[in-house]
Amino acid sequence: MLENYTGQQEIYDALEGIKSKKIKSIFYVACGGSSALTYSSKYILDRDSKTLFAEVYNSNEFIYRSPAKLNENSLVIAISHLGNTPETVEAAKFSKRKGATVISFTQESNSPLAKNSDYRIHYKYGPQVNPADSRNILIIQLTMGILKIKEGQTSKYNALVSSLPKLQKVTHDAIEYYSDRLSRYVNQYKNEEMFYTMASGSNYGVAYTFAICILMEALWINSHAIHAGEYFHGPFEITDKNTPFILLLGLDETRDMEERARTFLEQYGKKTLLLDAKDFDLSEIHESIHGELSSVILLYVLRSLSREFSKVRNHPLDTRRYMHKVDY
Amino acid sequence: MLENYTGQQEIYDALEGIKSKKIKSIFYVACGGSSALTYSSKYILDRDSKTLFAEVYNSNEFIYRSPAKLNENSLVIAISHLGNTPETVEAAKFSKRKGATVISFTQESNSPLAKNSDYRIHYKYGPQVNPADSRNILIIQLTMGILKIKEGQTSKYNALVSSLPKLQKVTHDAIEYYSDRLSRYVNQYKNEEMFYTMASGSNYGVAYTFAICILMEALWINSHAIHAGEYFHGPFEITDKNTPFILLLGLDETRDMEERARTFLEQYGKKTLLLDAKDFDLSEIHESIHGELSSVILLYVLRSLSREFSKVRNHPLDTRRYMHKVDY
Repeated sequence: MLENYTGQQEIYDALEGIKSKKIKSIFYVACGGSSALTYSSKYILDRDSKTLFAEVYNSNEFIYRSPAKLNENSLVIAISHLGNTPETVEAAKFSKRKGATVISFTQESNSPLAKNSDYRIHYKYGPQVNPADSRNILIIQLTMGILKIKEGQTSKYNALVSSLPKLQKVTHDAIEYYSDRLSRYVNQYKNEEMFYTMASGSNYGVAYTFAICILMEALWINSHAIHAGEYFHGPFEITDKNTPFILLLGLDETRDMEERARTFLEQYGKKTLLLDAKDFDLSEIHESIHGELSSVILLYVLRSLSREFSKVRNHPLDTRRYMHKVDY
Repeated sequence: MLENYTGQQEIYDALEGIKSKKIKSIFYVACGGSSALTYSSKYILDRDSKTLFAEVYNSNEFIYRSPAKLNENSLVIAISHLGNTPETVEAAKFSKRKGATVISFTQESNSPLAKNSDYRIHYKYGPQVNPADSRNILIIQLTMGILKIKEGQTSKYNALVSSLPKLQKVTHDAIEYYSDRLSRYVNQYKNEEMFYTMASGSNYGVAYTFAICILMEALWINSHAIHAGEYFHGPFEITDKNTPFILLLGLDETRDMEERARTFLEQYGKKTLLLDAKDFDLSEIHESIHGELSSVILLYVLRSLSREFSKVRNHPLDTRRYMHKVDY
């Protein structure tokens, strides 16, 4: 079954390759949206691993910070679409010099990042791609695979592998379910100049990537991802009937924080879009991974939201002022 | 000399108390501004400690995430002004149940947080307080003290203790130096509706606290703290001559990232306020701790900026719509 999907053999090879290595720390190293995707993997290791410490770093922060615990007992998981993000390529080289093992996620096998990795996993990208072939799922699968081979925790890994054939339909249905609601929201608030996004736990990275890669980068709309627990310790004072919020409600153990934010926004906000993973039909997916998968599905629903924004604001999602156009 | 300062005996007692304990992980647990203060301590442990893993968590995120590595080999450092922040008190109780040692920073010795801690360190708070008596410095001192007793790294701890008598003047002079510039900036851009803040490394927490606790909470101005390395992977597309940025340039190892952001903002932005720690007179402070201390001094300069904003916008810094006024 697995041979139907992208990257599966490479995940197997990487896991086999690190089986005999003594690993104490795992560093997820990437930039922007690639980095945000790894927040949920840190969440998994934080909650479930008794032996492995996990860190998420922007690639340049990682190099300059130069963690003292980066060594031959470290695994570095580096991500870059084309494998040519300069900071991430440099971070892989830096990690190799420190003796760490590097596993990379990148589409191009001849890329500098792939060449500076011990193991390289490829994936497909784009709105038409099956989530099972995307890095969104593959990074989580690798993380659960590490827990399997290093600590004998097999249940989540097996549940994820079994869910692969179901992901495309589940995601498609979730986008369909929200379609009208997204369209209404975008039409009603198309002229707003700022949207806050909010989430907690494994969903925080999703809120973060929507803020920085979609709203700010692709749509040139001001934004900020607020952590739902931090919201009540400062940010909530900005709330009023005129301030738009996009709030994610996931299915992981931190959901209470997101619900608390919802209760507050229902009373004091008005321009709020709620995306609630309880609306997704996950009946065919094992409950033990609903938290992890709902975080990925929320991202797909948000990508659909970005296409709605693009239409009504007449702003193509791939227009850039600076990236790859000027020196920086 | 040390008896002249607040909290010194308590830091000594806490360090003595954990000397014989085997510590593998340190969790800094707090909410909002109290949490932001600990980012620089994680930076210190990331860079300097070969044995201790450090994490920073919002208190509720910490409880719900329930890290599997929280146990009798963990040290939890919890911070709350009055020691009654419900999430942080609960996090201390939770940590005790897991067998961890809890050190708290709080002003009230009879507070619930103090009562649920193994060791409690008090401090002074407010614009007139000597930085040497503030938690800004004491948390860093405790962190360096842990490195001293656990790994024999004495130089930064000793440098910090020697610097205590100099901090008030250094900070005062930095605020004076920037006084006219802050006043001009605030008067020129007093009607702006959003300010981005930006920094990296040990200064990122300072940018974060200014965004959420000062701009959003105290002044009801939209904001978002951008990591200077992440800036070039999404957020920078929002930059134009009309978008205000407050950029911190510190003296730690990540400064290159902040300089890169400065170069970009100088070309494509216009409403930028640069706060550069190179302008501070640190000649009497040992160079090994310039990075750590400049992060604290930047915070004091930003607090002075907040008072300027408060004046010209005629918005008292302590006005709240929700905090301690409504249920949430």
